[in-house]
Amino acid sequence: MSGYLTGWERVAASSGILRFVDRVLRGIGQVLFQDNPLSGLLFLIAIGWGSFAAGVPQVSIAGLVAVIVATLVAQWLHVDRTALNSGLYGYNAYLVGLALATFLAPGTLLWAYVVLGGAVSVVAMLGIANAVKAWEMSAFTFPFVLTTWILLLATYGFAGLTSSALPAGRVVTPFEPYATAGLTFGGFVQGVFHGISQIFLKGNIVSALLLLAGLAVNSVAAAAFAFGGAIVAVITAHILGAESELITGGLLGFSPILTAIALGTVFYRPSWRVGVYAAVGTVFTVIAQSALNVALMPLAIPALTAPFVLVSWLFLLPKQCFGPASTATIDITSIDAIDTAHSDARRPAA
Amino acid sequence: MSGYLTGWERVAASSGILRFVDRVLRGIGQVLFQDNPLSGLLFLIAIGWGSFAAGVPQVSIAGLVAVIVATLVAQWLHVDRTALNSGLYGYNAYLVGLALATFLAPGTLLWAYVVLGGAVSVVAMLGIANAVKAWEMSAFTFPFVLTTWILLLATYGFAGLTSSALPAGRVVTPFEPYATAGLTFGGFVQGVFHGISQIFLKGNIVSALLLLAGLAVNSVAAAAFAFGGAIVAVITAHILGAESELITGGLLGFSPILTAIALGTVFYRPSWRVGVYAAVGTVFTVIAQSALNVALMPLAIPALTAPFVLVSWLFLLPKQCFGPASTATIDITSIDAIDTAHSDARRPAA
Amino acid sequence: MSGYLTGWERVAASSGILRFVDRVLRGIGQVLFQDNPLSGLLFLIAIGWGSFAAGVPQVSIAGLVAVIVATLVAQWLHVDRTALNSGLYGYNAYLVGLALATFLAPGTLLWAYVVLGGAVSVVAMLGIANAVKAWEMSAFTFPFVLTTWILLLATYGFAGLTSSALPAGRVVTPFEPYATAGLTFGGFVQGVFHGISQIFLKGNIVSALLLLAGLAVNSVAAAAFAFGGAIVAVITAHILGAESELITGGLLGFSPILTAIALGTVFYRPSWRVGVYAAVGTVFTVIAQSALNVALMPLAIPALTAPFVLVSWLFLLPKQCFGPASTATIDITSIDAIDTAHSDARRPAA
Repeated sequence: MSGYLTGWERVAASSGILRFVDRVLRGIGQVLFQDNPLSGLLFLIAIGWGSFAAGVPQVSIAGLVAVIVATLVAQWLHVDRTALNSGLYGYNAYLVGLALATFLAPGTLLWAYVVLGGAVSVVAMLGIANAVKAWEMSAFTFPFVLTTWILLLATYGFAGLTSSALPAGRVVTPFEPYATAGLTFGGFVQGVFHGISQIFLKGNIVSALLLLAGLAVNSVAAAAFAFGGAIVAVITAHILGAESELITGGLLGFSPILTAIALGTVFYRPSWRVGVYAAVGTVFTVIAQSALNVALMPLAIPALTAPFVLVSWLFLLPKQCFGPASTATIDITSIDAIDTAHSDARRPAA
Repeated sequence: MSGYLTGWERVAASSGILRFVDRVLRGIGQVLFQDNPLSGLLFLIAIGWGSFAAGVPQVSIAGLVAVIVATLVAQWLHVDRTALNSGLYGYNAYLVGLALATFLAPGTLLWAYVVLGGAVSVVAMLGIANAVKAWEMSAFTFPFVLTTWILLLATYGFAGLTSSALPAGRVVTPFEPYATAGLTFGGFVQGVFHGISQIFLKGNIVSALLLLAGLAVNSVAAAAFAFGGAIVAVITAHILGAESELITGGLLGFSPILTAIALGTVFYRPSWRVGVYAAVGTVFTVIAQSALNVALMPLAIPALTAPFVLVSWLFLLPKQCFGPASTATIDITSIDAIDTAHSDARRPAA
Repeated sequence: MSGYLTGWERVAASSGILRFVDRVLRGIGQVLFQDNPLSGLLFLIAIGWGSFAAGVPQVSIAGLVAVIVATLVAQWLHVDRTALNSGLYGYNAYLVGLALATFLAPGTLLWAYVVLGGAVSVVAMLGIANAVKAWEMSAFTFPFVLTTWILLLATYGFAGLTSSALPAGRVVTPFEPYATAGLTFGGFVQGVFHGISQIFLKGNIVSALLLLAGLAVNSVAAAAFAFGGAIVAVITAHILGAESELITGGLLGFSPILTAIALGTVFYRPSWRVGVYAAVGTVFTVIAQSALNVALMPLAIPALTAPFVLVSWLFLLPKQCFGPASTATIDITSIDAIDTAHSDARRPAA
């Protein structure tokens, strides 16, 4: 696998177009922290499949358009070349494109929105990465969340862009429990795999398997934490009594899975203490997902991956205290890597 | 008193269990900035009394469980020992426990929530203290506010946790004035003392007197500013025409009282200029409390002590400008103390 | 013109009262980034005219009262003299005064609110400028936005202060398109000029012309970017299908115009690359204005200039990446100037 990659890298370096393709693919790979064009390609296929299967091919096309625009804009802005080559200016744009085409009805202005969103996501990435650098923190997917929230909220004031799937606005009301048959094995399996594919806004088991494959080719640990995080999320949501459709649709799982990968494998080196810490963070992300779903009800917009960003920042900020307390279990180099968060810290430690 | 404390400290140092009890009590004391186990004990008795008197003993028990869990988690995370011994990883957890048991109905999942909330409050404290350290600022009770908001908001999506006292969600509507007999002397007294006890989410005059006693044993200035802040808050709220029940219930007073203590005695050394500054901050906290009550209406959650945190951060951030301008009145050591905000800045200057 | 200014500065320096008048006028000028008392005087006349013409003279008086109070408070707090003399403690207060008298009904408590708001705006300016200094960022009008939001939100809990013009609270609902005759030339002109005057919360063409004159006496580039930004904003809002009344009333234009001036002339030296960047920022501010209008619907308060602050921070934060990438086009001195953001970075580069 690594020989294959080395070969590709030699070829990519020799051609402007292939170098560009490499940046786009790594950008897609970075949605799940993988600085690897093969991961990105598998993710692209996974989302293409899910998108076509659901009868909305424009969704995966919008994602691709946005990541291409973002890569061009990043080049125009002369951003840091290492970060650019690692795909760090692409992953937010890819998600912006997917989200806009998922929540808004097709039309000319949608495509203008996708191009603008892709471009602004680069500015947001540069700005937010710069803002959180003081805490040696990654921007995670917050540039995606912020850009998409603004673009989606604004549509409620514009005739030119209409919602096709945005939630209806309402004030917060108590939970209405309804008769349910409990969590079946089928529902459990659906919940786990849909959680994984919902990271890219799709509920599709084949997509999920391709995503796991894309993770595994670069980092088996990342695939394992993704799978484990998905299981923890479904169980937590079930115990707390969340709505069955949210659980089986994976809608309470995608943020916790990202938290599990981030805390468990990217920024801390795996160990049993880090595992416990990541598990608590994963459980708390399920709760934060429900909380942000509720908090955004009156605004009629989705929480996206904001719960993951919020909890991961919260659980990574104590690192100075957590780190030195366990030098035996925490790899110092993986902590140092965060210093250069927008260049290569998102490479997996394992 | 100080001889008594020295004796206790010698005893506490000799035993793991007593050291743990000392940390828990100081944690409770730190809710009102007092690094003193006797203050903590008096606060614990005050809240126990108020809780039992109101027929909700589980509230004070939940507070105690959360602070014990938090202290254990802080030890497991190998946090800074000085801060741990000062109770700085306990006060947020104590408030989280009180709040969860106040707003949610009893049940197994409530206790799981209390344990999780106590644990996450430590992570939030480590993270937020780290985040605001760049401005030499204390985290205040923001870890409590953030953790509790997330936990409470999430319950609207869970069948397993139901509200017993959360406000109903609604959009903001103009104030509905109603016939009122003005502020009687009895209402005034109630407002002042309930404001003090509402810091711990209880409206109870005996509790308030015990809390004042707990303050006075460690810092007479803190007790005086708490009392003065309570009076300023009631008068301000009355002049602005706030709802009588909010005033007499102390619900517009608890945040301003915390601001008065923080600005007046903890971070600035008392002087007439600081007194004026603290008074303006206290008045503005009444307004911020009303503002946040309104802002959270659509979300159906309480403002907790967020108005205190917001105004205190705002009024302490200018310290570089305010400080040097009045070296005669501001004690440099109390400013320096903020440098080490998560270790001992919360000790009173007086 | 510059001889005139030098003469005035000599006179102003010789008298405590004239020095104070100079600070107040520069404070008003700084709303549009102009450290020039003549600009401030022209802005004052423009708003006085618009205010009297609309039958609400108390609005411009409240603005003046607030900026006078703020200047006195800033002096009492011994703030940095250079910043004070540049009017940097006045512009937020002027806007606070205008906004409070625009949205709230007249009465004794309104004037108490104006005085308190003017005073708190200084603390907010000191605090926020200090908070964002780490990123070499200006506070922009965020102190105004924060102070006014808190003061306005709070009135929904007070009988003593009633709304005269605040929006009604409601949950977010899909846009209701209605029959419209398209954008006429008259509507276009109104939209452009009202956008400029709405920076000071007034829709008045004469005021807009006086404001442009006030800009031009200090910086022709600033006047040009204001005018260009206004045109871009009207066209963008029209293409996206915004409500005609919002467009012709200038209510989607004032924030984008501020963004255009800030990105185009104050913090970056004009060039074609910066022009493109500023244009994208201006377009995105139209969207952000719509987004924040929507987001604040359930809270029944106006967005004020928050969209400008948000987008300008976002588009200026990447400067370290943007700057060095284009040393040929970006003037290093204008970037350095941001270092001293609360003293003189708001002086125009041209």
